[in-house]
Amino acid sequence: MPRLYHFTLDPYSRRMRLALNEYGTPAEAVDEQPWAPSQDLSRLNPAGALPVLVEDDGSAVSGVEALGEYLEETRNGGASLIPGNARARAEVRRLTGWFDTKFYAEVAEPVLTEKVVRRFMQREQGGGSPEMTRVRKGLDLLKAHLDYIGKLADGRNWLAGDHLSLADLAGAAHLSAIDYIGDVPWADFPSAKAWFQRLKSRPSYRPLLTDSVRGMPASKSYTDLDF
Amino acid sequence: MPRLYHFTLDPYSRRMRLALNEYGTPAEAVDEQPWAPSQDLSRLNPAGALPVLVEDDGSAVSGVEALGEYLEETRNGGASLIPGNARARAEVRRLTGWFDTKFYAEVAEPVLTEKVVRRFMQREQGGGSPEMTRVRKGLDLLKAHLDYIGKLADGRNWLAGDHLSLADLAGAAHLSAIDYIGDVPWADFPSAKAWFQRLKSRPSYRPLLTDSVRGMPASKSYTDLDF
Repeated sequence: MPRLYHFTLDPYSRRMRLALNEYGTPAEAVDEQPWAPSQDLSRLNPAGALPVLVEDDGSAVSGVEALGEYLEETRNGGASLIPGNARARAEVRRLTGWFDTKFYAEVAEPVLTEKVVRRFMQREQGGGSPEMTRVRKGLDLLKAHLDYIGKLADGRNWLAGDHLSLADLAGAAHLSAIDYIGDVPWADFPSAKAWFQRLKSRPSYRPLLTDSVRGMPASKSYTDLDF
Repeated sequence: MPRLYHFTLDPYSRRMRLALNEYGTPAEAVDEQPWAPSQDLSRLNPAGALPVLVEDDGSAVSGVEALGEYLEETRNGGASLIPGNARARAEVRRLTGWFDTKFYAEVAEPVLTEKVVRRFMQREQGGGSPEMTRVRKGLDLLKAHLDYIGKLADGRNWLAGDHLSLADLAGAAHLSAIDYIGDVPWADFPSAKAWFQRLKSRPSYRPLLTDSVRGMPASKSYTDLDF
């Protein structure tokens, strides 16, 4: 069975778990800690980043965009996650890239680094108490992103158009990692919340509901389907 | 004729100029300044980032990964820039992503922000003299990247395999922006230099040789084919 090297609260790893489940081709999960990469990980991906998929023949695929496209080309017996014509596919990829760069830089990186990663790092690596200024700024920018997600979800069936796509999984992966620590103000953004509820009810999401990180129990909203 | 909103020394814009030339479908270039985006740009791409392609019917495609895939799907009458089977294509995209995230964060962003962008920004926007600590750190990390590029180019015909690909254009786009300001130590990295020379000799690269940025003449190595 293929293996997916991942970290539970890494948004890029979460997207690939969701994608593999949507394609109906799950992989065995191998836990990694981004702040202390194993020798295996460094060998499999020179960039040292998660996630990495290792196929049964030992070949490794890394790079989150590369892996998303690779799964679409090799696992697409079922539904496509980059559906439609070239324009529609460009919109899926634009939004996926939006989450990977803009959302990550503005929200996920500061919030998750400060509140999760630094908690597990040794002090000499930069571990310690979260820098709350960075967290507050990230959570403030999160509101604009939830607003944008709500606007997209109101005008379309899914974020990139009529069909569920990699863009929805990318957004859900980022948001759910932040929801794990209870920092998504769902009540203030009903359209984004309704979109996320639909995603969260899909069978592909179910395995993520029982995620747990040592010493950090999930927030109430994370485990609750009617959050 | 389609239009490409770009900035001369933006590595992502440069890659798309090279790609459009390789496909044999050039676009009219519209100059933008990343530190002072026009209203047009903000309307065409909510992320405000370059490059953006505007098709003859007015539709816009943005997001550098999205645009790369879109061109491959709509301009691939000639040679493919994401060639081969799913594995080979994953390697093209892994390396492209390597340049877009790792090389950009470690080298291109600090060097180009400090030595180019801050020069043109108003003081109240953060403009001013370059922070040389950031530049020096970036140029130090550049050496490891040139070493990696050299190793790839020694073992393969092009960076991702037997054929020229988007990965070569991504690398060349980043490196040539830094070469414009004369900061690539080519002499110390003969394998990377030989690879770059082959790229620089291609017809697709020719229009870039006469690039010029107001008040910043190109380095000697930039304009010279036998640098």
